[in-house]
Order: sequence, then structure tokens, then C-alpha cells
Amino acid sequence: MFENTEKTNLQELGEFGLISHLTKNFPLKRESTNKGIGDDAAVLDAGGKKILVSTDMLLEGIHFDLAYTPLKHLGYKAIQVNLSDIYAMNGIPEQVTVSIGLSSKFPLEAIEELYEGIYVACEKYNVDLVGGDTTSSKQGLVISVTVLGYADEKDVTYRNTAEEGDLICVSGDLGGAYMGLQLLEREKIVFLENPQIQPDLEGKDYIVERQLKPEARRDVIDLLKSRDIKPTSMIDVSDGLASEVLHICKQSDKGCNLYEEKIPIDPMTYETAREFGIDPTVCALSGGEDYELLFTIKQADYDKIKHDVDVSIIGYITEPAAGYNLVSKSGQVHTITAQGWNAFKG
Amino acid sequence: MFENTEKTNLQELGEFGLISHLTKNFPLKRESTNKGIGDDAAVLDAGGKKILVSTDMLLEGIHFDLAYTPLKHLGYKAIQVNLSDIYAMNGIPEQVTVSIGLSSKFPLEAIEELYEGIYVACEKYNVDLVGGDTTSSKQGLVISVTVLGYADEKDVTYRNTAEEGDLICVSGDLGGAYMGLQLLEREKIVFLENPQIQPDLEGKDYIVERQLKPEARRDVIDLLKSRDIKPTSMIDVSDGLASEVLHICKQSDKGCNLYEEKIPIDPMTYETAREFGIDPTVCALSGGEDYELLFTIKQADYDKIKHDVDVSIIGYITEPAAGYNLVSKSGQVHTITAQGWNAFKG
Repeated sequence: MFENTEKTNLQELGEFGLISHLTKNFPLKRESTNKGIGDDAAVLDAGGKKILVSTDMLLEGIHFDLAYTPLKHLGYKAIQVNLSDIYAMNGIPEQVTVSIGLSSKFPLEAIEELYEGIYVACEKYNVDLVGGDTTSSKQGLVISVTVLGYADEKDVTYRNTAEEGDLICVSGDLGGAYMGLQLLEREKIVFLENPQIQPDLEGKDYIVERQLKPEARRDVIDLLKSRDIKPTSMIDVSDGLASEVLHICKQSDKGCNLYEEKIPIDPMTYETAREFGIDPTVCALSGGEDYELLFTIKQADYDKIKHDVDVSIIGYITEPAAGYNLVSKSGQVHTITAQGWNAFKG
Repeated sequence: MFENTEKTNLQELGEFGLISHLTKNFPLKRESTNKGIGDDAAVLDAGGKKILVSTDMLLEGIHFDLAYTPLKHLGYKAIQVNLSDIYAMNGIPEQVTVSIGLSSKFPLEAIEELYEGIYVACEKYNVDLVGGDTTSSKQGLVISVTVLGYADEKDVTYRNTAEEGDLICVSGDLGGAYMGLQLLEREKIVFLENPQIQPDLEGKDYIVERQLKPEARRDVIDLLKSRDIKPTSMIDVSDGLASEVLHICKQSDKGCNLYEEKIPIDPMTYETAREFGIDPTVCALSGGEDYELLFTIKQADYDKIKHDVDVSIIGYITEPAAGYNLVSKSGQVHTITAQGWNAFKG
């Protein structure tokens, strides 16, 4: 019988600490396994193209709040967050499996809405739903998605291959999804206190959409291919810029210099952060769920991309001894630490 | 905001009804998708071997009860139920991903136990753990496993390819996992009523192990290969013999005759069923989680397998108009209906 006698707090370890603790003794035995745990996706080989596999689980009350998350958006987002992992390997996602656990509070019509969002995402990104599992749940809504993608060997892009002098680039803008979440949480509290008051999201569409309906950046992968750029390393921004840039640097055994003034932040994110008394740069560094791509390129590729407004060059890779530095707008140098979203915090 | 206004009861549809309802409008668009939903695993093609993908989700309170399920066994079983799906396609599983949702009641040591079971299963079946996700859960333990396997195109075995006259075979014995569950449930109630009384599982090791620690039948796949038999169709027995034989017949557009006296039931299963006042044949037909393989072979292959005590020939495939028949020990003919385990029943 299971008894909770010994306790080591999971929060202390954090998600990455826990995964690496639990899996450190698992050897890789199969020739078909090129890369296991430790990147955005595993890389497998069955004799054809490289197979990229990634999986993400979304739990009610942890990753989403049905008080303000339409089920259609939730279905859409569950697919996007998985596709993003395949793009981050410079691959093309082609299949997903979706497992759902449902409590009895959900009628069929609610699940149809969820699948409508999954459908729209699959159609838009040209991905097939090929399997899954549907079961009742005593607990609330559980969504587990696995995505399969493919890439030629020469195209697969890892986290641990950044080189000194490479330029650090990020697509789109950062911190928006986090501020969208703050806004939704605030309006939820207002609504719970007085159900007559309708949510005030006027003029905040962009950041609310960043939170509820993110888009995986297939267009960035296409852009890089069309410019004949292969990133030297890449990761998707799911846990905040700080956490992701540290993954690239630590796994590549390098350092970095980032420039605060170069970090792309949308004006709406900036204004809303100010309104909430939050530093917009902190939103970009530590807010999660932007699902942009963070990647490094050779300096020689700079000319190919310098006019693309949707890609910002925010710094460069250094020797490891130089550390992980953020140069502030006032010229001060701060050490970057990962304070990204931690699923064990709450 | 989500509100539960319209209601169609999920129990009425059942799991297969729900999946097919939700996914019927999802077209397959990718050349790399050979087979989507509807078999034990999806079949994908990236230019090398065929890739087999299957996924299963286990939820606390639905699929397992921690009152009598040791976490190590649970981890082991979570892998086995997935491997079983790959063997049911006549493939070899090589990788798994494992996503876990944990409530705060679990200390690190409990999760280590769970991963110890996963580790043992991966080692024994020569499978690599290549990815996953670990998150907190507000509710209880959630385990979602995806397995990848491989097979040469000529070896992949589907459910929908049984032919008239083929012999219906099943490995091992049936109903044991179900009776093991009944026993564990009974002892749990006794324990809850009087915590001083220790569980009485004396002499019931086999059926308890069938429930808590099933083994996917890799040996059967190996046996068939060594005898140069390719099954004409195959499925794993996760929901009871009745449900599985109907999947093969309906998807193959065929009927069947099964003989009650040929259905393999272990003496311990038989005796325990009698003790509980349950018909042992009903345990085999409708009890779930045996994870044996149900397959059909050409009559010409009969001689190659007739002496294998671990494979029972329990009937044969007929023309569709003949229906789905079970010939009882007394010679009466009953129509087989699926009353398999339904995750939406409880």
C-alpha cells in the first residue's frame, strides 16, 4: 500500500531537475535512437528521414483555467505547443496523437468544441491526427499530445551546437502571452467578485490571443530555409527567454551577451506590463508560452536576415568563461538566471 | 466562459463511439500517414521501416487505485500496455515517451518508485525512454505513454485483414487480470472496514500479478516469426475477448464461430470466478487487461503451431452473414456482443 512517509519536495527540484533526476540512469540501447531526452524533441532513425518526437501534457488548473479558456482555443493551443517543438528542431510536423481524460461535468458538446480546435490546428498546419485515447477522469480535463515530425539529417537543429561568435536571434515578440495571462487572471477575479461585471479586455486582443491561441512559427522555419540559413542551434520559447538562452548556452558549453534594448516587446505588452507594475523585460525573460523560436546563426548569415522585421538579433554567443550576461539599457551587466515558468511552483 | 448547458451523456457513446464520433471528420493529408486511427497503432512511413505509434493514458481512480497498486508495478504496467499495442501490429517497440502529472501528495521517493518500474520494463523489453513531460497536477496521478515501434512493410499486421476460414488464435489465458482486480477490490473493502485485517491474497499470486504486472507478449511475436507464420490479422486483448474479436470481424467484414470450451482460462481464474459467483467464460469475454494477443492464421499454418501449448485455437472466421457466434459447452449458439471494459462506465 502506498504511504507518503518520506518527503522530498518536488518544487525544490523544478521540472528540469526532476526529469534529469528521474531519467539519468536510463541508458539508450537502440540503434534507432539518435537522441533521447534533452532537446525539444527526440531524434529517431528507421532508415528514412529522421523522425522527431515530442510530447506535452496539459492539465486543468495547472496549464489552463476553463473560467477564461474557450475549449476550442484550448484544443488549438494543445496542438500548437507540440508543433512548436518540432519546428524548434527545424523539422516539419506531420502527425499528432491526442489523449483526453474527461470528467463527467463535460457533455459531448464541450468535447466537440475541444476537437474543433484540434481540427482547425491540424488543417492549418497540415498535420494528421493518427491516434489517441479517450477516457473518463475523476479529476478534470487532461490533454496529452504527442507530435511526430520529419527532417533530413542535415537539417536537424539541436540546442547544443551553438558556436562562439554566433548571433542570437528570436522571432516575433516576447512577454505577450504572460501579460495576456495576467490580464485574464485579473478579470477572472473581478468576475468572481461581481458576476455582473463583464471582462474588460478592450483593446487587449493581441496579448489575450498570445495567451489563448498561440501560433507555432512554421513561417520562421520556411523563412530560414528560403534564405539558405541553417541555424547553428535552436529552441522554442516556452518558459521565457532567460530559461531558453541558458539551455542553449549550457548545452553548447558557451556563454552569451544579450542586449536588453534588442529584446522585441510589443507595445501592448509593454503598456500592460507598466499598468500592472511589472518590468516588461522581466515579462520577456521569465514569462512563458510565447512559442517563438530562439536560434543562433553564423555571423556570415547576418546579411541574409538583417532586413527581416520579424527576426530580432538580440546578442551573441561567447566563450563559456564569459558567463551569461544581459546588458541593460543603461549599460549595466546582469547575470541571466532562469526564473522561467515552473510547473511545480504553484 | 465555459458552461455546461447542453448534455449528451458520454457513457451512452462509450470510448470507441466517442473516438469515432470526434475524429470522423479528420481527413488524412500526409503521404507519410499510411494508417491513422482504427488499429492498435498508427502506421507511418518516413522512407525506411514502417513506424508504428500508439498511446495510452492511465488516470488515478479510473485505471488504477493506489490503495493496492504499488507504484513500481504501475510504472511497469504503463509501459507494458503500450508495448502490447506494437506487438499487436507485429512490430518491435523501440522507444517510449512518458508524461506524468503529479499532485503534491507525492514525494520524490514515490516518483522514483514509479520510474523504477518504467526502468525495469524498458530494460527487459529493450526499449529507450526518449522524452516526456513532468508537471504538477491538482488532482492525482496522470500517466500518458506513447510508444514507437518499427516493422518491415510486409510484416505489419492489421485488424481488418482476416479472411473466411482463417483460424482464430489467442495466446496465454484470459480473464485472470479481471479476477485479480475483483480480488484486490474485495480485499480493499475488507481493509477499509477493518484496517487490522491484512489482505488475503494467499495462493492468488498468478491472477493478482495478471492485474498488477502484465507482460506484453513479445514472445508470441518471436514464436510466430520463428515458425514462419504471418498472422492474417491481430489485435491485443485489452478490453476482453468479445470486444477484440468483434473489432477483427467488423473491420474485416467477416463473421466468426468461437467455441467456449476452447477459450483458455487458468484454473486459478476459474476457481476464483466460481468463488465470486461469476461465470469464468464471462471473465474471458468481458474482463479486460489480459494483454494477450488475438490473431488469425491461414488454415495452412495450423500444423506449424498446433503443438504450442501457449497458443489456443478458439474458432474460425466465417462469412459476414453468419454473424458473431459463441458455441457454448452445451452446444447452444449465442451472439457475441461487446461488453468489454468501458472507461466511461464508472
